[in-house]
Amino acid sequence: MIERYSLKEMSQVWSLENRFDKMLQVERAVAQAQGELGLIPKEAARAIQKVNFKLKNILEREKTTRHDVTAFVQELAASIGEKQGAYVHYGLTSSDVLDTGFSLQLRQAQRVLNPVIKQVKEHLKHLIQKHKSALCSGRTHGMHAEPLSFGYKLLGYLAELQRAEQTFQTAMNQTILGKFSGAVGVYAVLSPELEERVCEALGLQAEQVATQVIPRDRHARILFALNLFGVFWERLALELRHLQRTEVGEVSEGFFKGQTGSSAMPHKKNPISSENLTGLARLLRSYLSPSLENVSLWHERDISHSSVERVIFPDAFTLAHYALNRLVEILKNLQVNQERMKQNMNLSQGLQFSSRVLTVLVSRGLPRSEAYPLVQKISHSLKPGESFENLLKQNAQIKKYLTAQELSDIFSGKEYSAALEKRIDWVLKELDKNP
Amino acid sequence: MIERYSLKEMSQVWSLENRFDKMLQVERAVAQAQGELGLIPKEAARAIQKVNFKLKNILEREKTTRHDVTAFVQELAASIGEKQGAYVHYGLTSSDVLDTGFSLQLRQAQRVLNPVIKQVKEHLKHLIQKHKSALCSGRTHGMHAEPLSFGYKLLGYLAELQRAEQTFQTAMNQTILGKFSGAVGVYAVLSPELEERVCEALGLQAEQVATQVIPRDRHARILFALNLFGVFWERLALELRHLQRTEVGEVSEGFFKGQTGSSAMPHKKNPISSENLTGLARLLRSYLSPSLENVSLWHERDISHSSVERVIFPDAFTLAHYALNRLVEILKNLQVNQERMKQNMNLSQGLQFSSRVLTVLVSRGLPRSEAYPLVQKISHSLKPGESFENLLKQNAQIKKYLTAQELSDIFSGKEYSAALEKRIDWVLKELDKNP
Amino acid sequence: MIERYSLKEMSQVWSLENRFDKMLQVERAVAQAQGELGLIPKEAARAIQKVNFKLKNILEREKTTRHDVTAFVQELAASIGEKQGAYVHYGLTSSDVLDTGFSLQLRQAQRVLNPVIKQVKEHLKHLIQKHKSALCSGRTHGMHAEPLSFGYKLLGYLAELQRAEQTFQTAMNQTILGKFSGAVGVYAVLSPELEERVCEALGLQAEQVATQVIPRDRHARILFALNLFGVFWERLALELRHLQRTEVGEVSEGFFKGQTGSSAMPHKKNPISSENLTGLARLLRSYLSPSLENVSLWHERDISHSSVERVIFPDAFTLAHYALNRLVEILKNLQVNQERMKQNMNLSQGLQFSSRVLTVLVSRGLPRSEAYPLVQKISHSLKPGESFENLLKQNAQIKKYLTAQELSDIFSGKEYSAALEKRIDWVLKELDKNP
Amino acid sequence: MIERYSLKEMSQVWSLENRFDKMLQVERAVAQAQGELGLIPKEAARAIQKVNFKLKNILEREKTTRHDVTAFVQELAASIGEKQGAYVHYGLTSSDVLDTGFSLQLRQAQRVLNPVIKQVKEHLKHLIQKHKSALCSGRTHGMHAEPLSFGYKLLGYLAELQRAEQTFQTAMNQTILGKFSGAVGVYAVLSPELEERVCEALGLQAEQVATQVIPRDRHARILFALNLFGVFWERLALELRHLQRTEVGEVSEGFFKGQTGSSAMPHKKNPISSENLTGLARLLRSYLSPSLENVSLWHERDISHSSVERVIFPDAFTLAHYALNRLVEILKNLQVNQERMKQNMNLSQGLQFSSRVLTVLVSRGLPRSEAYPLVQKISHSLKPGESFENLLKQNAQIKKYLTAQELSDIFSGKEYSAALEKRIDWVLKELDKNP
Repeated sequence: MIERYSLKEMSQVWSLENRFDKMLQVERAVAQAQGELGLIPKEAARAIQKVNFKLKNILEREKTTRHDVTAFVQELAASIGEKQGAYVHYGLTSSDVLDTGFSLQLRQAQRVLNPVIKQVKEHLKHLIQKHKSALCSGRTHGMHAEPLSFGYKLLGYLAELQRAEQTFQTAMNQTILGKFSGAVGVYAVLSPELEERVCEALGLQAEQVATQVIPRDRHARILFALNLFGVFWERLALELRHLQRTEVGEVSEGFFKGQTGSSAMPHKKNPISSENLTGLARLLRSYLSPSLENVSLWHERDISHSSVERVIFPDAFTLAHYALNRLVEILKNLQVNQERMKQNMNLSQGLQFSSRVLTVLVSRGLPRSEAYPLVQKISHSLKPGESFENLLKQNAQIKKYLTAQELSDIFSGKEYSAALEKRIDWVLKELDKNP
Repeated sequence: MIERYSLKEMSQVWSLENRFDKMLQVERAVAQAQGELGLIPKEAARAIQKVNFKLKNILEREKTTRHDVTAFVQELAASIGEKQGAYVHYGLTSSDVLDTGFSLQLRQAQRVLNPVIKQVKEHLKHLIQKHKSALCSGRTHGMHAEPLSFGYKLLGYLAELQRAEQTFQTAMNQTILGKFSGAVGVYAVLSPELEERVCEALGLQAEQVATQVIPRDRHARILFALNLFGVFWERLALELRHLQRTEVGEVSEGFFKGQTGSSAMPHKKNPISSENLTGLARLLRSYLSPSLENVSLWHERDISHSSVERVIFPDAFTLAHYALNRLVEILKNLQVNQERMKQNMNLSQGLQFSSRVLTVLVSRGLPRSEAYPLVQKISHSLKPGESFENLLKQNAQIKKYLTAQELSDIFSGKEYSAALEKRIDWVLKELDKNP
Repeated sequence: MIERYSLKEMSQVWSLENRFDKMLQVERAVAQAQGELGLIPKEAARAIQKVNFKLKNILEREKTTRHDVTAFVQELAASIGEKQGAYVHYGLTSSDVLDTGFSLQLRQAQRVLNPVIKQVKEHLKHLIQKHKSALCSGRTHGMHAEPLSFGYKLLGYLAELQRAEQTFQTAMNQTILGKFSGAVGVYAVLSPELEERVCEALGLQAEQVATQVIPRDRHARILFALNLFGVFWERLALELRHLQRTEVGEVSEGFFKGQTGSSAMPHKKNPISSENLTGLARLLRSYLSPSLENVSLWHERDISHSSVERVIFPDAFTLAHYALNRLVEILKNLQVNQERMKQNMNLSQGLQFSSRVLTVLVSRGLPRSEAYPLVQKISHSLKPGESFENLLKQNAQIKKYLTAQELSDIFSGKEYSAALEKRIDWVLKELDKNP
Repeated sequence: MIERYSLKEMSQVWSLENRFDKMLQVERAVAQAQGELGLIPKEAARAIQKVNFKLKNILEREKTTRHDVTAFVQELAASIGEKQGAYVHYGLTSSDVLDTGFSLQLRQAQRVLNPVIKQVKEHLKHLIQKHKSALCSGRTHGMHAEPLSFGYKLLGYLAELQRAEQTFQTAMNQTILGKFSGAVGVYAVLSPELEERVCEALGLQAEQVATQVIPRDRHARILFALNLFGVFWERLALELRHLQRTEVGEVSEGFFKGQTGSSAMPHKKNPISSENLTGLARLLRSYLSPSLENVSLWHERDISHSSVERVIFPDAFTLAHYALNRLVEILKNLQVNQERMKQNMNLSQGLQFSSRVLTVLVSRGLPRSEAYPLVQKISHSLKPGESFENLLKQNAQIKKYLTAQELSDIFSGKEYSAALEKRIDWVLKELDKNP
């Protein structure tokens, strides 16, 4: 039921039509090379460049053959007549065509995904620049901690996405291979030379040592890499959900005219896109384990991986494509409420600067073992409405080490923003080195 | 891409059309009860029994509302005019309709699955009876062990299936509930009395204490129960794959006229159906973890579970339905080669009776600490082609405890079959007590 | 590295010493029955009631035998001398002792877990009663929704725990079985009568039809049931973490004298126990899939499940035991801030009552299609600091349908608390019916 | 209960003692750098090079602090007296020390694992060379297919292991980082300069942009990479289990003097090591999902990942270390039965050459659409004991295209071995380029 998340371009990649179309490309390339190497008659090679299929014919034939590749080959052969058709799929085993065709589909899927990844990065960069110095409360354990800027917060997500992308491209490169070593991968009928030639024509590297199939540890790497996108958007969506909750309200997803948040409660503007993304990451994660279980095929291959791959690869790419597109929409329309960020920081009554106060106290010579309980005691004595800054200014012990002005400087937060801007610039430059 | 495994009846259950149809039933039942209780005008209640929808209209409306239930309610209301339409979905929250509608879909899915489960059981029983006394080698670690009968082997699968079925029906009963407690489940607008009345009309039990939704630990039970079917067919498919391998050859899947086993190797008859089942179990397993992650929704509910459930429930039921149907085909056409079973037992040169020999030796007074190494030594000295029975008969030590006739009796296997037949009858009778 | 979470009682259950001790019980019970049935000499049976072992001797012997059961049996036999020792483990296969012994360990684990589950329930009930009518904001999507009482919120958790417990006890009952059918489960040497007799002596039901082992679908049920506890405490811990965040502050975990929340930030009181529980649920979930993969053993058994079970069962029970104990501590010390609950409700400026307003408007004859946008418009126009109640009271359209007094009544919340108290009482009574 | 699989070197890495020892190294390096940069007094920096701890003191202190890092810092400070001790952990947040210390543990674990990986590779290479031209039946679907050599079979495993190793080293490099950006990662107290200096001293790269912790997507990569080892050994163990089954018997695990295969069946030599490895891969796989769930921490960090990591990292490395060591033992003692390989090939009565026959027929001008059913028909008509080669030689149709000599050449298999040897040499050379 993945169709709900199936956007047009990605849907096309995983259509049955396209699957056979990629296999068709493979059959043609093989015949071409076999003709060149004199392994089949040149006329046959030429004729095979024109083989074609009707999807419904293949499906019809499959009812009898109960083997989709055989049905496919019969259909191709029939399209150019018996004589030359006999040379279609010459010396190949099904997996040669299936696995190489699958690689071509994966390459397409990669090309559909890449621009969306790029868009997410662009939107993140834009938001980082825009909110570079917008201070907000950092939070650990869901509790206010030191402040940071909203731009700096997003910077971590950008870096994570770039790491995911790198692992993804590596995984794709390690998997998108051609394989023409025939039954059980021993080149009994085909030759490494032919394999090289066909692969080159298709723009692929050849698998060095296959069983009957391209080893499935390669493909598992793709599922893992897609999951790195998954955990990236999950973490970001979780952040945005937290920041949107009624009591926080620092950001909100755009709200469209006519949109209703709840059929019962008319006032609600809910973070449904972020919630949707959280769920999709959960779902995507589930496809990883079967891809690892798929590696251990019996001997030179069994076919148990096939029923699994027919679901998890289309579904995982479809989810990733949908989710990243939806993330683009969220980022594009994200409303950031800098005013609320300031208000929330005030909720902590200045406690977020306790760490800095502690550090400065120790640097002034108060042993840490005294400084820590002192600051803790003052902070715990803070009553609702009171200001931590004021309490410190009034404390006799503290006064020995820090002037009121020094305390004011600490609590202004300005040095924070300045330092963060500088750091953001530096990291962005670093990230650009490996785009 | 689950469509590949989607058979008609189950596919209908999970269609978008049917989803809204179940929601429609819910809305009508609610209005009916509200009319009876005087909560809405009787004419409105009557009118609402005729509300209807066109799927494409709902989808069109959803583009504006970005909320499918709102779109659905608008469409229903429009179908009977503004005046009475205002009472559609009166006082309900979306989840009341969604979750109760989902329960109705689950009940349908259960009704589609039940007869297939029954068929599998019937075929297993038939095979058990047929091969009740057909001895074959038991195997532990993939190595020959004591013999058992093929019928007895299958008996364990039947018992496992019956256990799975029981857990499945329990899980379904625990989940197929109605929920009409409104927003955050507190009956602010609706009442427990109304809930009871609507549930009764729909043939459902009511949820005792909901958040805004029926708690998702219930639904996770279903995914687990479906996985009990999954591991059942996985273990059986694995058994059949092993028994079909070239060196074993004790069973084979039926082979159809025109079917080809391999596009390269014309002689092959491959256990592709069993392999397919193995893969599908792997895939089904993957849907379990997200269903557990779905339980921890934020506070009274977030919507992150929805994107997950829209995929995993249809997909898991579809897989189970497909796989059990395919298993019926396998069992119906299974070819059992009793001759090969005998040949394979001979491969062990009688070693499968070593355990019994050991036991009898000990019962005759040879200390186990001597008997074990003695039997082990003889068995390890067995050369290809030799018979363990003969070696034992010639051994001076053994002779002191066992006569040649006694050894012959042990190696005949007859007492095995007789005992197994008896046991099979007894277990079948027990199983019939909780069908 | 599960030791970190290993509390004494549960740790004892899973010690190596205890494992062999349970196997010892089994061997003695078997000999006893065999003596009674005349299968071994009565003196042997009597002698075997005194067999014993030293753990280090078994480990020493295992170095040679590379088979722990053989080492164990040798040690037992040695403890009473060769003559009677020969009848130890008479006619058994290792799995008879291992699986039945494992059942005895599981029964112990169950007995260790049960009282902790009971404690959690007691603490929940106490909190439910105490905060029965303490109104707080319900939240969906993390956004304020209708109000509910804190007691009502906890009621859902109690019900979930009781469901989990029920499934757990069922799963334990379905798994804690004895098995004495010998090699490949065919009673070649042993008899169903003997099995019955030994099982009765050990207080166990007998497995109806085994392979060489008790089928592993049974054990998978236990892992699933433990995970129902896991998702229960995960959902509750998540709730508590949310309610503790700085901006919400409705509850807090107790804080102990001398405890430090952060080595850098002295003011922090962090929800670390709840966070810990969240992590442990995640970890516990991971043990479920291997338990399902363990079901499909080859033929009558391979031993691949053993290395898995030796880790996941002790670890899963240890986690559950630790987590539920830690939850008891959290609940016992939980500080509930009813004042803050009220303040937070005010944050929504009364919007949480919008649903009720809508319903009443419709009941007064305003068509829903007009009422919804009207209420939505007013709610969206609400400015910071304004009261939704006041805005409604001033709205000309609204005035036509609702008086100021009626609006005041709606916004007081009193009818909410009263209704919830009543419902809580009813549900608690229902839950007590299946304790 | 991972201890069962805990070998000494790896066990040391994950001991609590070593954990604190790595944290100690970090604290010293920080003080050293702070002294050099004039951030703390030089004498303090010097004194801190001598801080130390007693594990039991830390554990004692933790009872009060309920925070292990605070307990640890107190213990270090106490070891050099209050005055200088105050500068221990100066300006750091716990995660700076925890995460960097964890990186140092990971580096150790890597160093323990690397030589074992190397040994596995060496043993595989040795076996590949030794059985380079030992023909055996290739098998797809568990059915005999084209022949290959045992060396060629193993070559695929070597290549897979090398790929896994590469991904592992990359993942380790991406994760073994230092982090000294303090609370919420903003360098409020510490500076990027200090971070660089400390990291350099510890031989680490610095994290570019952290939250309060090193982002957990990095650590998930390690769990995935360990699982690539897992699926490698799982696939190999599965292969060896299949090849050991009674009916196949092509290899066997070494069997030791005094070892018993079964307490009931003295003759059994079971593939228990390979079965053990299969189980361990299953178990290892389970740790992957929690590592991905660990990525989405709340805001700048919550602590839910910690309880998970304390189990899954030690356990996963321990499993990998144990399993690879056990694999070394298996490979070292593996008995390869080339004679049985030949016998098994004969079981197929020559059918494994059907693909080649088909290809040659087509190359001689027989249309594939005729050749395939022809060869299939002959192969299916083959009776037990008959030779496919002979049947072909007698077939009138076949004779038109192939002479008896040509058929003999095909069935001799010599060209297979020769080609495979050549290919093996080439691949080994390629693999050596990226060792």
